[in-house]
This record gives sequence, C-alpha cells and structure tokens, in this order.
Amino acid sequence: MTIKLLIEYDGTAFSGWQRQPHARTVQGDLERALSDLLMEDIKVNGSSRTDSGVHAREYPVSFQTNGRIPPERIALAVNAKLPDDIRALSSVEMPEGFHARYSSDGKTYSYRMLRRNLPSAIYRNYACMVEESIDLEKMTSAAELFRGSHDFRGFMSTGSSDMNTVKEIRDISLSEEGNFIILTVTASGFLYNMARIIAGTLIDAGMGKMDEAEIARIIGSGIRGRSKPAPSCGLYLEKVYY
Amino acid sequence: MTIKLLIEYDGTAFSGWQRQPHARTVQGDLERALSDLLMEDIKVNGSSRTDSGVHAREYPVSFQTNGRIPPERIALAVNAKLPDDIRALSSVEMPEGFHARYSSDGKTYSYRMLRRNLPSAIYRNYACMVEESIDLEKMTSAAELFRGSHDFRGFMSTGSSDMNTVKEIRDISLSEEGNFIILTVTASGFLYNMARIIAGTLIDAGMGKMDEAEIARIIGSGIRGRSKPAPSCGLYLEKVYY
Repeated sequence: MTIKLLIEYDGTAFSGWQRQPHARTVQGDLERALSDLLMEDIKVNGSSRTDSGVHAREYPVSFQTNGRIPPERIALAVNAKLPDDIRALSSVEMPEGFHARYSSDGKTYSYRMLRRNLPSAIYRNYACMVEESIDLEKMTSAAELFRGSHDFRGFMSTGSSDMNTVKEIRDISLSEEGNFIILTVTASGFLYNMARIIAGTLIDAGMGKMDEAEIARIIGSGIRGRSKPAPSCGLYLEKVYY
Repeated sequence: MTIKLLIEYDGTAFSGWQRQPHARTVQGDLERALSDLLMEDIKVNGSSRTDSGVHAREYPVSFQTNGRIPPERIALAVNAKLPDDIRALSSVEMPEGFHARYSSDGKTYSYRMLRRNLPSAIYRNYACMVEESIDLEKMTSAAELFRGSHDFRGFMSTGSSDMNTVKEIRDISLSEEGNFIILTVTASGFLYNMARIIAGTLIDAGMGKMDEAEIARIIGSGIRGRSKPAPSCGLYLEKVYY
C-alpha cells in the first residue's frame, strides 16, 4: 500500500534532503528508520529537494510498504527510531499512484529574517540577519511584482531539473513577529533556489540596493538578476498541497 | 581595568555556564577566547550559573584586564575567537569593584512553552512542549500569587548556595506569540531552579493538576511542592539589572 507520511525537520545538521552515500541526509535517516520499523527495504519519495540547512514544518513523503503496522500508527512508531531533529507528525494510506512530489499541486515556503545589526547565537541556524534599517514597506511593495504567473528563469540557480520555468505565485506576503520579518510564498511550484533568490531580491529591495523597475525587468526578461540567494537557514518548507 | 561584557548564547551544546575541567561550558569557552584575544589569563565572573541547555540573550560578565584593546572594541574583536553559539554583543569599562553577579540588582528570565500535542524537531532545544488544551487563564491567575516578596524556599532545588531565600518578584506575566506561551519573571534574585520550578508549577496549574490554594500553601509554608522544574531548554536569561 501507499503511505503519505508528514515529517518536520531541523535542517541544521543535515546535508539537505536527498540521500547521499557519505553524508547525513533527511532522506537517508528516514529510510533507515522506516526500513528498521517495517522490516523491509523502504525507499521514500520526498516532496522537495531542500538544501543543506533548510528546515521543514510539514514535509510529505510517500512510500510503498507491505508491513502490517496500521498506516496511521506508522508516524508514532517511527519516532522511536528517528533522530530527534526529524519528527514524524502523521501518516495515512493514500490511493495507489500517489507521489509526494508529482501529485503536488503547490507549496508554501516561508523565509525568516531577524532585524538586528548584531550577530545572534540563538537564531544563527534559524533565520537570516537583516539590518534594522531595512524598509519593510519597500519589500512589501516589491513583493507584489511576483504575484501571478511568470517565467521565473531569472530567479533560478543553475542545476534545476525542472523544464517548466513558468510558475504561478498564488500568494506572497510579509509579516512581522517581534523583531522577525517573515516572507510567505505560495506557488504552483518552485525552481531550484527560487524561494531563496526571491528572499534575497526582497532584502536588496528593502535595503535600497534594487528598485522595482529592475525587479520587473528580471521577471520580464528571464535574465538572472544581481541578488544572491538568501542564506538557507532562513528557509522553511511550510506545506505541500495535493 | 574592569570590563562588563554582554554575551548571548545558545545553551544547547554546553554543560551550563560554569567552568568544568572535562566539559564544554560557556565560561570555559569565553575565558579561552578572551585570554587569547587579550594575551593574558582572563577569569570572568558570570551573572548567573545557568544549567545545561539554558539560553541567554543578554548575559553580563565582568573581568579585569590590562590589555590595550579599547574597552568598547573587545566585544567585536572577541567574536572572531568565539564559537558561533556564543556571541559578544557589547563591552564597556565599569568603575573598579563592579561584579556581574554581586553588583546585580535583579534579573529577568523568560520561559518559552510551545502549545502542541506533537513533538517538534525545530523547537526541541528552544521551548518545552505543553498540551494544546492548557488553560492560559488559569496560569495567568496562578502567576499573580507569586508577585511580591516571599520566602521562595519551596521553589528551590537542593544545592542552592544562596542563604537568603526571600526574594521579591517585581513582575510576572504570560503572553502569547503564535503557538507559544511566554512566561516572563523579573525578580530581585532567583534561587537554584526557581524560575524552572515556577514554570513547572504554572504548567501544572494550567493543566488542572494543581489549584491556587495548593500553590499559596507552598509559598506560605516554604515546603517544596509537587511540581518538577520545567525542562531547561525553555529557559532564557533575558536581562540583568544594576
């Protein structure tokens, strides 16, 4: 049968999602724990190939199992086998053919910025630092340019396997929570590094290093802009839709 | 001259504040970095002996130095020598006789609880989990019992070196931030584990395991109550007053 398992992870100590022979990865640790629990060789399909340092709050994976543990019990049971920087939240049986990545209809990422001129020990792995003087209104106004369907080739790092570079940004917003600025983006899909490059572009906009005309030109032309991807530690996969 | 240095630290990977021969401690790492920077043997006085796992946002230390680095430059310079889970925030020269602990006139601690029935990977070292059903009104009402000067012997773990068990709680409040409940307590001083036992008592109050009459009895009698100290990872030293 096909199982959808939701997990949360702290990406700090992982070399990203994808299994690698000599590095600690979320997929590697999860497959080991599930194989141990279900006493068969489990291979999981992830919903997103998150980079090293990126976190996830509700990350769905799908896999096939012949095990005799009731589907909704798998999440609780596998936690005993998982390291504590991965937690299984829920599990459910899905119709044959369900695939965590290919069945997906969209995703939400958030990007967390801490407004502060000094470095932070506590948040060093969980947010990116931005200067206190950053202009949130400029960021909010620039964010509106991304809304809708565009060819996002200009906001992609090389190495993307996705052939379709047209994506629809369904929602994009900035909010404040104490000293944090949180960017939330919901799209039909994300190209490689797209969420981090959008965050980097909005940080540049907020610092007055890039104006709206330049951002509009990048969106219109598909030519990669000057903004770097914002650091991976600020990025959180929030939710995947089906 | 006498320097007051403010540091922030993530207590997760430390065996607490206090120097120990065979364990990684904040004091040990800080003294090594300062000695290296100032090219003399530096011993620091901390403001609080925080336990393993406890965090600090503005933790003052005092120390003597004959070094030739301008006092206000020390913070920036020592960051290059410190591990990234300790960050120096500022440094200033103080009058002779200033001592981070004995000169202190009071402290603020916060205690961070995440309202959620599932375990969390991301917040496992930064908050304690409480059940979603916890009653914040009951906690807030019980918290008022602590306000003012009391003998807090009943909220102390054995091993306290403080002879004066009468402390004044100047402010105590609970607030919500998303799914977090944050307890903030300002007092003239804190006995060993006092902040964590108060947090544990308020969690018991919020879960209906302890009523206000019982809490009032513990405060009145000085006999240690049933509530355990809440886990160290939820505790943050916020500020020390002089």
